[in-house]
Amino acid sequence: MPRASTFLWNKTMLLQVNCRGYTTARHMQPEPGQYSYAPILEAKTFMQPEQGHYAHHPGRFVYIKDEQRDELFSVPYEPVRAIPDKFTFSAGPGDAQWEISHKGIGLNWQVTLPPEEAAELWQLTVSNDSPEARQLSIYPCFTIGYMSWMYQAAEYSANAGGIIARCTSPYQKLEDYAAIKQAKDLTYLLHDTEPDAFECDRERFEGEGGPHNPDALNAELLAGSAAHYRVPVAALQYRVTLAPGESIRYKFLFGPAQNEQDIASARRQLLQDEAGFSGYRQTLEIGHASISCASPDPMLDHFCNHWLPRQVYYHSDINRLTTDPQTRNFLQDHMGAAYLKRCDPAEAFRLALSQQADDGTLPDGILLQEGAELKYINQVPHSDHAIWLPVCLEAYLAESGNWAFLRETVNGSTVFARVLQALNALLAHRDHRGLCFIDQGDWCDPMNMVGHKGSGVSGWLSIAAIHALRLWSRVARQAGEANAAADCEQSAQALSDNVNAHLWDGNWYARGITDDDVKFGISKDTEGRIYLNPQSWALLAGCADDSQRQRLIAEVESQLGTPYGIAMLAPAYTGMREDVGRLTQKFPGTAENGSIYNHAAMFYIHALYAIGESDRAFHWLRKMLPGPGEDDLLARGQLPTFVPNYYRGAWQQYPDSAGTSSQLFNTGSAAWFYRCLIEQLYGLRGCPEGLTLDPQLPSEWQTASAVRHFRGATFAVSYRRDPGTKATTALLNGAPLPDNTVRDIETGAHYTIELLLPASRK
Amino acid sequence: MPRASTFLWNKTMLLQVNCRGYTTARHMQPEPGQYSYAPILEAKTFMQPEQGHYAHHPGRFVYIKDEQRDELFSVPYEPVRAIPDKFTFSAGPGDAQWEISHKGIGLNWQVTLPPEEAAELWQLTVSNDSPEARQLSIYPCFTIGYMSWMYQAAEYSANAGGIIARCTSPYQKLEDYAAIKQAKDLTYLLHDTEPDAFECDRERFEGEGGPHNPDALNAELLAGSAAHYRVPVAALQYRVTLAPGESIRYKFLFGPAQNEQDIASARRQLLQDEAGFSGYRQTLEIGHASISCASPDPMLDHFCNHWLPRQVYYHSDINRLTTDPQTRNFLQDHMGAAYLKRCDPAEAFRLALSQQADDGTLPDGILLQEGAELKYINQVPHSDHAIWLPVCLEAYLAESGNWAFLRETVNGSTVFARVLQALNALLAHRDHRGLCFIDQGDWCDPMNMVGHKGSGVSGWLSIAAIHALRLWSRVARQAGEANAAADCEQSAQALSDNVNAHLWDGNWYARGITDDDVKFGISKDTEGRIYLNPQSWALLAGCADDSQRQRLIAEVESQLGTPYGIAMLAPAYTGMREDVGRLTQKFPGTAENGSIYNHAAMFYIHALYAIGESDRAFHWLRKMLPGPGEDDLLARGQLPTFVPNYYRGAWQQYPDSAGTSSQLFNTGSAAWFYRCLIEQLYGLRGCPEGLTLDPQLPSEWQTASAVRHFRGATFAVSYRRDPGTKATTALLNGAPLPDNTVRDIETGAHYTIELLLPASRK
Repeated sequence: MPRASTFLWNKTMLLQVNCRGYTTARHMQPEPGQYSYAPILEAKTFMQPEQGHYAHHPGRFVYIKDEQRDELFSVPYEPVRAIPDKFTFSAGPGDAQWEISHKGIGLNWQVTLPPEEAAELWQLTVSNDSPEARQLSIYPCFTIGYMSWMYQAAEYSANAGGIIARCTSPYQKLEDYAAIKQAKDLTYLLHDTEPDAFECDRERFEGEGGPHNPDALNAELLAGSAAHYRVPVAALQYRVTLAPGESIRYKFLFGPAQNEQDIASARRQLLQDEAGFSGYRQTLEIGHASISCASPDPMLDHFCNHWLPRQVYYHSDINRLTTDPQTRNFLQDHMGAAYLKRCDPAEAFRLALSQQADDGTLPDGILLQEGAELKYINQVPHSDHAIWLPVCLEAYLAESGNWAFLRETVNGSTVFARVLQALNALLAHRDHRGLCFIDQGDWCDPMNMVGHKGSGVSGWLSIAAIHALRLWSRVARQAGEANAAADCEQSAQALSDNVNAHLWDGNWYARGITDDDVKFGISKDTEGRIYLNPQSWALLAGCADDSQRQRLIAEVESQLGTPYGIAMLAPAYTGMREDVGRLTQKFPGTAENGSIYNHAAMFYIHALYAIGESDRAFHWLRKMLPGPGEDDLLARGQLPTFVPNYYRGAWQQYPDSAGTSSQLFNTGSAAWFYRCLIEQLYGLRGCPEGLTLDPQLPSEWQTASAVRHFRGATFAVSYRRDPGTKATTALLNGAPLPDNTVRDIETGAHYTIELLLPASRK
Repeated sequence: MPRASTFLWNKTMLLQVNCRGYTTARHMQPEPGQYSYAPILEAKTFMQPEQGHYAHHPGRFVYIKDEQRDELFSVPYEPVRAIPDKFTFSAGPGDAQWEISHKGIGLNWQVTLPPEEAAELWQLTVSNDSPEARQLSIYPCFTIGYMSWMYQAAEYSANAGGIIARCTSPYQKLEDYAAIKQAKDLTYLLHDTEPDAFECDRERFEGEGGPHNPDALNAELLAGSAAHYRVPVAALQYRVTLAPGESIRYKFLFGPAQNEQDIASARRQLLQDEAGFSGYRQTLEIGHASISCASPDPMLDHFCNHWLPRQVYYHSDINRLTTDPQTRNFLQDHMGAAYLKRCDPAEAFRLALSQQADDGTLPDGILLQEGAELKYINQVPHSDHAIWLPVCLEAYLAESGNWAFLRETVNGSTVFARVLQALNALLAHRDHRGLCFIDQGDWCDPMNMVGHKGSGVSGWLSIAAIHALRLWSRVARQAGEANAAADCEQSAQALSDNVNAHLWDGNWYARGITDDDVKFGISKDTEGRIYLNPQSWALLAGCADDSQRQRLIAEVESQLGTPYGIAMLAPAYTGMREDVGRLTQKFPGTAENGSIYNHAAMFYIHALYAIGESDRAFHWLRKMLPGPGEDDLLARGQLPTFVPNYYRGAWQQYPDSAGTSSQLFNTGSAAWFYRCLIEQLYGLRGCPEGLTLDPQLPSEWQTASAVRHFRGATFAVSYRRDPGTKATTALLNGAPLPDNTVRDIETGAHYTIELLLPASRK
């Protein structure tokens, strides 16, 4: 059985569904809470990659007992694990569903969410596809699990029309009580059809049989116990006889609530009236995609037309289900939103800028609401946040054309000035060599011992600063700020000289220099010898000359290239290196320690496009999609639904597990993938004047087409290789377009563009 | 199957073993750590009552496959859950073991600990009790579980002779690294006999079969995989053919380590040389019992002669596996040690006094070592710690006769003066009525809203203060401190007047008065109408007159009495009462909310003895032992091994679950049970002159005997009811003993005492 998963979310909750039936749910109140619990005290933490499952893992299951044949199986697969005759798991933008056939019984089990509330709407259809009548007991079983040691109970409520479990979130400090009191400590399961029996006590339900073979199913009817301080379960029983061809449908609503009024209202608004649900489906089905592509690669098309913009939207929509997103994530996630229809990241950028300190530095996390506080990793000082402000704003300006945004005032300074302040704060924080201090870490944050004593510097950060300064210099020039532009360029050049003087290792750039003056990420290291980020960003920053470029690309490709993508560093560390830090304690190939960290890989791809290496860029871009090696879904005709934050790396050390998906869909790579697709691969990039056409199709593509929504207009673009064309030539409505730029775009207008490409860009 | 459990501990670890095979282990490093993990991130917390189990709960199992008969079962019972022909679970002071017979195969599975190190020594004996040869595969399987998202791996090491799993404790803040680095992040399973095969990867081991039917057992040999970032398991396989009557024995060592050197040393010292283990057994087998009783109640005898002193010793030996024990627990746990052979609590009392503040108040927790900090509940201010200092010291003085301790100096003040300072601080913290402020809570700590605004007062605390003052007044008088004695008595009397003026509710004492002047624990309350503690302590304090005593005892018995013991309050709260607080959010009948909270019940028993109600006292004392209703062990000829912190109460509301044991063995009731047994039931109480003989045997006992170790001497005491005796008469070595007090006790001497009791004390 595969382990593929998909995820659904709305404004207040997130649901990850594994195709075996395991399910993880979190909802915001405002901190993340749960209502279907792991068996014991589950630590509240950020989402983890490669999260495991176990026998009592939360899930939404349906046991089916054939009363005449004395057979038991469960839908989707857990917990009974009987192999069905047919099994299809499919994900839509707003739902997930299973189509299962088991010995003449057809089953459809599907879930969707409402647009706002934390609640799951499940629907079960059971049909008799066999020639004789079938007598079945159908047991929907929603796990609730160990809720609290302080109070937990569950009972059937005829009035509510379902099972209600209650608990008290434990607290000890009086000052925590006010928040606890607001917690949604009720879990409900509501039905649309009155069951024949129910059970609320997990132990009585399972007996000695366990979750895979609950004792309670041996009886004619479930016993109908309440759970008094015992682990609750929400199990129902329907006894039906289905004639040949007959089918029956049930609906269930499962979710958290604060009180019984909430539950009654959930029944009225969400179970009895499905308008809310169809609204949610429509929102996601219409989608936010701003480009629709047709290429010789249908899987890429499908992923980019449907799933990728959905994932980009997810990030900006609920900020990774945190109240204190990391500043670099927040800025990039909302940069992604700039490429979506019906999204405007300006407000998010204003919020981030409003939290900039007086000295120009940005905080480690952006607080989204009152009462939020910096948690976990955001309490560790990181030095790179300034980089992302110009990088993400520049993308926004290019896409939106909203140059007036630079003149807006946030807390008394213009946006333009605030970016300069951030860059100046970054420049001020450098060592005697003129390189940027790393402090306790920068991007790809697991290095926390390089510079904690105050002397260590970051190679990547110094190089990224060059890129940020040059990019902002161009923005300044376009904004008519010639002095600022010159200052930025001058600082960039000086920094570039320092970087080449101190960090060039002969064939690539070092990752940094520790507090104790030890250079690392260099040829004489046996582990962590080469890091991807300094090389990618050197290509973007223009600090490497032609010879340096060629050499570093060759090294990246040979040392970091794997069949599953480009690794973030190699060889993966196998033990702690105390002058580098936390990264080196991770398992080789996971997270940042030599994994194919897609966010980092995207910058290499972005940089390759930037220097015109489009075939090489496409090769690695294409690796971002989960392939058949990753799970069985493709073999079943399904498609991947998200880019994971990493694929396992350490390919040399652990070839068997290399390529395994983290199954974690929180990742900055989604936004950058979408941006590269639009601006670089299809070459439809905004500029102050309008839209620049500069495609970089892979040379094996002879034709392609795209419909692009941009600044309120629609562009139908066709791409065709033409042996007679020397340089890309654009025709607008049949007429040649000087400098391949569409100017004076009219809102609502439809532009037809033909692009003739040379036979090969190489 | 029963759910009974027992526990083992040593200087660094604690192991709770459930008779089904589920096991919970914690070790100190110095904060509690684990090495056999729950399936996902397990929150580190204090020990919880009624802790549940689940399919992937940590355990130590042995799968047995009969190769010819194709049969599978597991020892002890989980995870296969095949019903054996014979099953015995027995606990010794230093081991736990199962004797199992399954279709002609005899199995003995036992565990013990070394005296110091965190390690489990398991031993398996398999014997062929059938008439034909049996071909078996034996698979010892030690769960390791989800160790860490940062790093986890396991592999077989031929060099170490077993399986070693590694992980990295996750950390994010640099300042946490130093401690993390010291963590014992390795888990090892060592064998004494080389296995035929092994498996380290839980998923490969279980396959689709799950823990109850692992796929790996279908193959001839385990596959021998390492676990690379996957959930580890330590499973071995031995293939053997046993002739009729033949048996085979294996030993395994399982535990945490910091590095491979530790593991090698564990093999040498603990697996190959069993001297350490026998030393541990000897320590506990010789025991610390200071009394050995023989009465008409053999179960009580067995419990009190073996298990009760063991539980008392546990508390003082490792301080409930904390580094910051609550002050009231610390003082009482070490008071218990005063009644044990080879224990001296003086050093513990000195430590507590050394942390007394300049204003006389005691901290909420006692820090046991450098780097320890007040955690959890100890960060919430409680007002009662001063009570326990005189109460526990007085017991120590009486038992040890070490009156010189009062003159010892701790941080510049004598112990005697420090107790007075603590009492004065308590007296200074009173309201306009002269009642003691409760602040955020006192003993039985779940009330945190009564007085958080600074006005609420505690009925129990005010009454307990009377008792503490009077008790210390007697100590002062005996110590020749007449002025202090008079001051204490005067304060006690004034407090007694205040209590009777403001807290007597007609038939019992109120529990307190809230910040908003609402009296609670009174007759007009429908929930929490009567609390046990104020009544018990009023009997001890002597603030209730004869009529008050009779009335409050009648109310306690009728309102709080249940078949399982005396409840702490009734009726149990069914919802939050915001002027009382956290207690009222607990599930009715659990923890303090109407449970039979044994620590509180012990004070009622202590008080009943103090006023001569010995039959009633014994009735409730006898309820402290887990009875047959609680689990099946008694039916199997076994005995309870500890007093749990509570039995479920709310008998009126939930009669079915009332009496359920919390299975939590951390409880102040053990020390008080032992003290009452020695000083009150058997009446062998120390005094400045020597030993006072004042037994209070239940009237149905005609004879009894006890051997008491006291101040270095041995007292063989026989009790006999004699119709001609009007008042208890003592004969020392056959001669009448004036005032029933043995004076001038000689170390090493043996005293034979005969006690003649009236036919009935009533």
